[in-house]
Amino acid sequence: MQKIRPGTLAALLLGSILTPSPLLAASSIDAIRAAALTDTVAMDFTEGLTTEVGPRPAGTPQEARARDWTVAKLKSLGFSNVRAEPYTMPVWLRGHDEARVIAPFPQNLVLAALGNSASTPDKGIEGEVAYFPTLADLEAAPEGSLKGRIAFVSHAMHATQDGSSYGYFGATRRQGPSIASKKGAIAILIRSIGTDNHRQPHTGVQMWADGVKPIPAAALSVPDAEQLARMVSRGHPVRLHLTLTSKMLKDQPSGNVIAEIPGSDPKAGVVVAACHLDSWDQGTGAIDDGAGCGIVAAAALQAAKAAPLRRTIRLLMAGAEEVGGNGGRAYFDAHGKEAHAMAMESDFGADRVWRVDFRLPQGHDALARRVAAGLAPLGIGASRLPAGGGSDIEPLVKAGVPVVDLQQDGTRYFDIHHTPDDTLDKIDPAQLRQNVAAWAVALFEIANAPESLGVN
Amino acid sequence: MQKIRPGTLAALLLGSILTPSPLLAASSIDAIRAAALTDTVAMDFTEGLTTEVGPRPAGTPQEARARDWTVAKLKSLGFSNVRAEPYTMPVWLRGHDEARVIAPFPQNLVLAALGNSASTPDKGIEGEVAYFPTLADLEAAPEGSLKGRIAFVSHAMHATQDGSSYGYFGATRRQGPSIASKKGAIAILIRSIGTDNHRQPHTGVQMWADGVKPIPAAALSVPDAEQLARMVSRGHPVRLHLTLTSKMLKDQPSGNVIAEIPGSDPKAGVVVAACHLDSWDQGTGAIDDGAGCGIVAAAALQAAKAAPLRRTIRLLMAGAEEVGGNGGRAYFDAHGKEAHAMAMESDFGADRVWRVDFRLPQGHDALARRVAAGLAPLGIGASRLPAGGGSDIEPLVKAGVPVVDLQQDGTRYFDIHHTPDDTLDKIDPAQLRQNVAAWAVALFEIANAPESLGVN
Repeated sequence: MQKIRPGTLAALLLGSILTPSPLLAASSIDAIRAAALTDTVAMDFTEGLTTEVGPRPAGTPQEARARDWTVAKLKSLGFSNVRAEPYTMPVWLRGHDEARVIAPFPQNLVLAALGNSASTPDKGIEGEVAYFPTLADLEAAPEGSLKGRIAFVSHAMHATQDGSSYGYFGATRRQGPSIASKKGAIAILIRSIGTDNHRQPHTGVQMWADGVKPIPAAALSVPDAEQLARMVSRGHPVRLHLTLTSKMLKDQPSGNVIAEIPGSDPKAGVVVAACHLDSWDQGTGAIDDGAGCGIVAAAALQAAKAAPLRRTIRLLMAGAEEVGGNGGRAYFDAHGKEAHAMAMESDFGADRVWRVDFRLPQGHDALARRVAAGLAPLGIGASRLPAGGGSDIEPLVKAGVPVVDLQQDGTRYFDIHHTPDDTLDKIDPAQLRQNVAAWAVALFEIANAPESLGVN
Repeated sequence: MQKIRPGTLAALLLGSILTPSPLLAASSIDAIRAAALTDTVAMDFTEGLTTEVGPRPAGTPQEARARDWTVAKLKSLGFSNVRAEPYTMPVWLRGHDEARVIAPFPQNLVLAALGNSASTPDKGIEGEVAYFPTLADLEAAPEGSLKGRIAFVSHAMHATQDGSSYGYFGATRRQGPSIASKKGAIAILIRSIGTDNHRQPHTGVQMWADGVKPIPAAALSVPDAEQLARMVSRGHPVRLHLTLTSKMLKDQPSGNVIAEIPGSDPKAGVVVAACHLDSWDQGTGAIDDGAGCGIVAAAALQAAKAAPLRRTIRLLMAGAEEVGGNGGRAYFDAHGKEAHAMAMESDFGADRVWRVDFRLPQGHDALARRVAAGLAPLGIGASRLPAGGGSDIEPLVKAGVPVVDLQQDGTRYFDIHHTPDDTLDKIDPAQLRQNVAAWAVALFEIANAPESLGVN
């Protein structure tokens, strides 16, 4: 394994010249790319976290173990100022998920409760299915028309390279439960927000709209949603028995893990490289987001190996991203007043980076061109779309911190997103290394940029 | 839907000439192929059985519903002499399957008990893992060396087009449990006999060797087997908690479904076209073997539409194939003394037929050439390997009945075989129709062959 022993990194930094320049940066980019394409740290990190910790639901003892594991790992890799930064949060915990068609075609269905689902009694509930092909059909149902019934919305998601279909189709998960409750439904089932055809339900968080009574809410696997739609299409009433137990806990411990590679110029602002440590409970969180944490850690090391850095690179391995971004908010509460030169996040699996988006202060076009030039040999094109960041850095981005997005290929991301199938074998090592190379190039250019990046 | 109303088929047969000839057959083959390639009966049958019945474990009320459904369906399609033929059998029933790593890396593992697994107590059992990369390694373990331990055999299956790797790798499931028990293990886990990387465990039957004490036995999904192997590779003892409850019932009702298209020459012997109605309990039995039953039913109808048949085509939709071939044996007990001209079976999914194998009486080379010539335009080559049939016709084949195998492409069959993922969406409609065309051509040539096929 290509591990840096504690102390080695500092020695390497002290042994180099202390004032970086654009010329040095330019000459180092080829070497950074070449070295990063043989990186082993990202896979080692991802393998270790997913194997030795496994599932890491926010606010649980497993997430706490992930923080301990990560603090030890980042220290062993030579990072500085490694620590967990705790906060507390409410936690929804899955119990037992089970669904059974009672009539007309008795059989079990595979499903998973959505985050913040209400719990059924242990003995479950029964009701007749009210079928809606799309979320718009559910919205169009008259008030009260679902009284005593189980809403079923079967909106089939389609894959897109940029993942943009998640925004559109994901509305069924985010808004469907509240809409169904308002109309009197006793529960709601949705077709998984996913692009696969395996019996792996895609869970995910949903928040109840103000004043809405929580009801049991779950996602059927795609084959099960299609099966239920076929049953409905026969024209006879379909009755289900649902058991979806869960519980809510208050004030549970969660936290972020922070680690740094110190830069030579404290006044130049920090470069935040973010990911999240928590995962959904069904898988081991390999693509979401173990790999993202592996990528940012490995890339920071690859960047620092090439030459000393002007700006500090700060890893933010956030807690509780999946359930609402608690870690990102806690980070901003603690650090939002510090000077931030840049925020970046890796949270879209481990498939290759194909595009780079920027949101830089005016007058920083030359920096964007240097970053794009360094990424081009990796098959990455620059876009004219503004970068937007992700949940863990959202408060920073909202506060105006510059952001660069290394957009990953999401064509197959929603095949396994939030399912039991999010496991290590889904990571393509070659594409993971391409991510490390892209991040190393970008972090190096940004950390060493002579431009102000809005920081005085 | 391309359904033939009751009575239509008989009218069609009576309206045609009654003495088929090879010349008529030859001229009809192009028409049969063309019509069968637009068949809708096979998909309609498969869709109906998997949706309206779903899982059909041998000897259960679901299998009984499958018989009722199938009898009604085949009557509606115009078959003659449609009936269920009951028998009784012992039944193993899955209870609750759960596995948890206790130490060193607490997390759940996904697994499914194998058929005839012993039951753990409801509260489960605990033990330390004894890891064996292959079945040969387990066999090499000293007697008694597994006392109190949970054997884990992680033999990775590889896909082959002809499915032959199932024989080799499947030995871990068939023999592993008895070997582990003999050496003192308290339970055995195997890596699923499968070629996918989804968290879908592949169940399947295993029989205890004489005198061996049954122990709990289960298959881990492939990602879970790899996860457990990674844990073991860390070098620390791995302790598991296993709950695998199940029960055995005596003398439960099962049965075959029989249906015929009568031929004009009762002395020429029947042509058996077999499949099985039962399925494993986790999926809905689409590729195993709903599609096989859809194929043989549709193909028999397509063959009979072209011209009257000399020989009776008899569908054998067997019960209880998955757990040991009880249906095939019951058929032979009831009908073995009748004249059988041919036995064929479709039980390898719904992907395209790519090869035809023969086992015909001496002097029947011309028939083989005619069948092969009719199949060639479908992309099917004739082999020199002898046909062997399958479980449902095994007693007939052992008794010397001629057999032709339409070999299907098995490259992806073991991705979903015996898993929850065996659902309708896995059927490729175009390849299913190619199967119907191949079967229709073969059944037509064989049913109308002037050769004796060993029947006096």
